Amino acid sequence: MKELKIFSPATVANVSCGFDVLGFCLDSIGDEMVIRKTDKKGIYITKIEGYDLPFEAENNVAGVSALAMLNDAKPDFGFEIEIYKNIKPGSGIGSSSASAVGSVFAMNELLGKPYNKTELTNFAMKGEALASQCEHADNIAPAVFGGFTLVKSVTPLEILQLPTPKDIYAVIIHPQIEIKTAEARAILPKEIPLKSAITQWSNVGSLVHALHTSDYELLSKSLTDVVVEPYRSQLIPHFNAVRQSALESGAIGCGISGSGPSIFNLCHGKERANQVAQAIKNVYSKTGIPFEVYISEINTQGIKIL
Amino acid sequence: MKELKIFSPATVANVSCGFDVLGFCLDSIGDEMVIRKTDKKGIYITKIEGYDLPFEAENNVAGVSALAMLNDAKPDFGFEIEIYKNIKPGSGIGSSSASAVGSVFAMNELLGKPYNKTELTNFAMKGEALASQCEHADNIAPAVFGGFTLVKSVTPLEILQLPTPKDIYAVIIHPQIEIKTAEARAILPKEIPLKSAITQWSNVGSLVHALHTSDYELLSKSLTDVVVEPYRSQLIPHFNAVRQSALESGAIGCGISGSGPSIFNLCHGKERANQVAQAIKNVYSKTGIPFEVYISEINTQGIKIL
Repeated sequence: MKELKIFSPATVANVSCGFDVLGFCLDSIGDEMVIRKTDKKGIYITKIEGYDLPFEAENNVAGVSALAMLNDAKPDFGFEIEIYKNIKPGSGIGSSSASAVGSVFAMNELLGKPYNKTELTNFAMKGEALASQCEHADNIAPAVFGGFTLVKSVTPLEILQLPTPKDIYAVIIHPQIEIKTAEARAILPKEIPLKSAITQWSNVGSLVHALHTSDYELLSKSLTDVVVEPYRSQLIPHFNAVRQSALESGAIGCGISGSGPSIFNLCHGKERANQVAQAIKNVYSKTGIPFEVYISEINTQGIKIL
Repeated sequence: MKELKIFSPATVANVSCGFDVLGFCLDSIGDEMVIRKTDKKGIYITKIEGYDLPFEAENNVAGVSALAMLNDAKPDFGFEIEIYKNIKPGSGIGSSSASAVGSVFAMNELLGKPYNKTELTNFAMKGEALASQCEHADNIAPAVFGGFTLVKSVTPLEILQLPTPKDIYAVIIHPQIEIKTAEARAILPKEIPLKSAITQWSNVGSLVHALHTSDYELLSKSLTDVVVEPYRSQLIPHFNAVRQSALESGAIGCGISGSGPSIFNLCHGKERANQVAQAIKNVYSKTGIPFEVYISEINTQGIKIL
């Protein structure tokens, strides 16, 4: 096998109460990439479609994660990477993670799978660090493992695969405004009230329990964020109106996807997801802000070969 | 049925990362109580053995919870309560909770079970509030429900029953020193670093996952507390030495039980529990501080009729 085409999915990190640790994987939106062995050693990005991104491997998220793997595997050949980007950078649904994961997943296949999923996550985090100035795994883990994931710890890296209850759909609205991850980080307090922290970890615990027991009602009650959302929601125009209309339309929960501006909604069943999508479209149509809406099943497989 | 004898178990609250929300139920230590219908309306504590506690119902934890239920149920009779106290007040293994739960559990049986477990928890919290100046459920919930519990929220009260992996034993050491719950609360900071909070909720999430998957290794890694233990462990002489020897002897985890001074250890298998018990006895024997050690299976039934 000399060449592979892969689908690298968009992901939702944080998931309300699970700031910095929880995430889930989407199905209907993601990048496509072609990775090909070359006789020449090194990483060469030969094509980028969709968005303007750097071609030099060391300045490109997919290139940096690829180089990290290459430096470890030390094969006597190299790789060419073509990137067909569908996930807009800065959208809050794991655009840089999709790139970072895509190259190392495909290279691992072409190398004969010497690395496990946790090791892939580790390489991809090097690429993610280029985009966000710190190594984090909350978007990478769901892209690699699929479904819902919990980053138990970063050092050493430990990822937990959580169960995905049946028939859950995500509705994502992406307002076409820019929020820098660094800015969204800077707005957060360094210290938080112990009382809020207790509420948050109670919700994380009950969310994990709800996923294990397919308890949609408990899932709904657990999807609240008393720590981060009060700050970051201020950066997203009409966030409260979107949430209100989503919940009134029967969404299980609604929150900020990653550091925004995208907003995710979880819904039980496709029909409900369609209703919620329509409701939040109605809210945003009146604002004059351009937006995209995606409806996606939870992708329990994660990144895959096409 | 005019009279009941019940066993009201000791419990461990907090469970390392789960400050204020997690708890589990013990089997080998608890109070016994006899509750009897009387023609005369009201709550009458007629006997207290084991420790000196107030006989006036409104000044006694078991009396206050009983009065809360009585005022709601309004039967045309009353109850006598006999308390055979084995759990030392202030030991940190839910002494007041055992009293508070015992009266209402037995009364509910004698009334024909009009109340469910969450309602029993609610009544018992009134008694607990007498002892600790605030209504909390992290000891009461495991006493009522058995096994591991998570207090999802206090208002409205919502308790989650978590699964208990097989063959888990608790080893408790109770140094005979006094730590007031109020003092143990006062030592805690009002604000905590966001970074520590994230570590804590990651551990709560992974602990719940570990209970669901019977993953003893993950359970072990999740039983850490970066928020509360660094403060409260200072109030418990030789805490670090106990923990070190417990973990070296193969304990899954070690932490402060409730607000101390008791220390709990979780162990996989009875033999391991015996080894851990011996190891921590060795540590404390050298200190000159009197202590008790209990070995107990996790009690998945909770409070019961004898």
